[in-house]
Amino acid sequence: MAQEREEFIAVCGKLKLEVLELLRTKHQLPQEALDWVNEMVEYNCIGGKLNRGISVVHCTQAMAPGKVLTPELKEKASVLGWCIEWLQAFFLVADDIMDESITRRGQPCWYRKPNVKMIAINDAFLLEAFVFQILKKHFRSEPYYLDLVDTFHDVVFHTEIGQLLDLTSQPLDGEVDLDRFTVERYRQIVINKTAYYTFYLSAACAMFLNGVVDEASHGLAKKICKVIGKVGTDIQDNKCSWLVVQALDRATPEQRETLKKNYGRNDPDAIAVVKKLYNELDLATVYHRYEDDTYKILTEEIDQVTVMPSEVFTLLVSKIFKRNK
Amino acid sequence: MAQEREEFIAVCGKLKLEVLELLRTKHQLPQEALDWVNEMVEYNCIGGKLNRGISVVHCTQAMAPGKVLTPELKEKASVLGWCIEWLQAFFLVADDIMDESITRRGQPCWYRKPNVKMIAINDAFLLEAFVFQILKKHFRSEPYYLDLVDTFHDVVFHTEIGQLLDLTSQPLDGEVDLDRFTVERYRQIVINKTAYYTFYLSAACAMFLNGVVDEASHGLAKKICKVIGKVGTDIQDNKCSWLVVQALDRATPEQRETLKKNYGRNDPDAIAVVKKLYNELDLATVYHRYEDDTYKILTEEIDQVTVMPSEVFTLLVSKIFKRNK
Repeated sequence: MAQEREEFIAVCGKLKLEVLELLRTKHQLPQEALDWVNEMVEYNCIGGKLNRGISVVHCTQAMAPGKVLTPELKEKASVLGWCIEWLQAFFLVADDIMDESITRRGQPCWYRKPNVKMIAINDAFLLEAFVFQILKKHFRSEPYYLDLVDTFHDVVFHTEIGQLLDLTSQPLDGEVDLDRFTVERYRQIVINKTAYYTFYLSAACAMFLNGVVDEASHGLAKKICKVIGKVGTDIQDNKCSWLVVQALDRATPEQRETLKKNYGRNDPDAIAVVKKLYNELDLATVYHRYEDDTYKILTEEIDQVTVMPSEVFTLLVSKIFKRNK
Repeated sequence: MAQEREEFIAVCGKLKLEVLELLRTKHQLPQEALDWVNEMVEYNCIGGKLNRGISVVHCTQAMAPGKVLTPELKEKASVLGWCIEWLQAFFLVADDIMDESITRRGQPCWYRKPNVKMIAINDAFLLEAFVFQILKKHFRSEPYYLDLVDTFHDVVFHTEIGQLLDLTSQPLDGEVDLDRFTVERYRQIVINKTAYYTFYLSAACAMFLNGVVDEASHGLAKKICKVIGKVGTDIQDNKCSWLVVQALDRATPEQRETLKKNYGRNDPDAIAVVKKLYNELDLATVYHRYEDDTYKILTEEIDQVTVMPSEVFTLLVSKIFKRNK
């Protein structure tokens, strides 16, 4: 696993050099601007868990005939994996500004650096633009290039829509309005903001690399990945939000009042009250039932996939549920 | 002219409704998110001079056989014209945050509205994403779709590179470092940040709509539009920066010292000193000579265009030089 990770990381270095070379030759950037881009990419694209990127390699192998990954296919899958990682870097650099976050991956957020500040906005744009330049350089002559570019556009669009839903779900004046925290609204935010680029995009890249381009297959992949993505995100990143929407869904008017008074406050007593309420509502059981039910639904859906090799989905599901054990 | 402008503006309303419809049906956005997008587009896409957008219609007509613009071609040109205007809105919303601007087109900048603030970053992303969704809806079945999308990507990339050059051309601590204000650096910023999307993109859209897709023609158009763009931007938007780089290029060490002391200060005495220095350096004459020389170069270059109808460039040149008379 360590070797696989190192090999994957090496591809990022290669892509960074390609981008710098393009900026130096075609765009004639001066050295200080090249240094800026170099540092910006290093700072924001490296240091994450790389789950999403490496997932493309795994998915591509799972779909390949005889599960054999040729060196050429592995290279292409790694490039697309890094496109997803850079795309994520684009989202995170921007999200950190919008959320006024302080740290990211154990270091100050990029925009918090004194010499960066709001230049980070343009840096986020650049990261996105680099992705499309990389796609062009490596895939322009492939028959699926147009679909690949459209897919990246659609995924970016979904993610931005998720961010819009998230940002407009609470009034800006700081008061938490729990009435806007519905199960449906939460589901919409998670699927758009996270599931698309985390799960569907990995699967879609593997599909293109294995010649699966038809709309029916991609529609099916989207449907399955939405479910995988919702559960996966609940488990990994958003347990906190998941719990509160479930609690609201089950609370009596009195319990809702208690939540309103105590939720979202950075105070040990308030946190203890919220935790006690979750216990009263037996959310642990709710959670395990939800997990079991979803696993069953997913397995049944995947069993019905006949238009393409279904191993890619089994793999993604196993990645999610394994982590939680 | 007033009728042409009204017809053109009507197309924006139509595109806005298409985007809202897509968000309502395919993406199932709740009403408050749709209202947000509606207001955001109205606020940021309308109210400009619309020179760039209407230019696509004029360029398309100038290139059309017999200069006849069919209703279908006019509609398509208007759609692409609005894609450029929305792209510009994306740049301006983001630039205003980065430059800490206060007003834009006679109203507070979007990010300055109390209920918007940093959500404006995601709104800028959305405006960019809408452009690619519009391109997909209206041009997906055209043979030049792939080249059109690549062209928009390239132009966005150039603009972001220009912004990078601009933002990294001065240290962030507020001290103006005139040594970084060279003619060459300035030229690079202007061409990338403004000329590409203002001039080349209009011409390129007209070329695609008239079936001119080959790389040689587009390379030539880029070359000519860079020159048009540099002069056009000098004349319209950046006279201030143009003057200072020219002054620095001609100043004695003593005059440079005077400039360093007085440039960029919001103080009537300092401004008077700078103006006096410009007079001493006879920059008015420099400017007129520069304008005449460029006009001559452009006319000669355009005369040599044989691979496609050259009227589109004559038109763009006349738009620039006419304004200045």
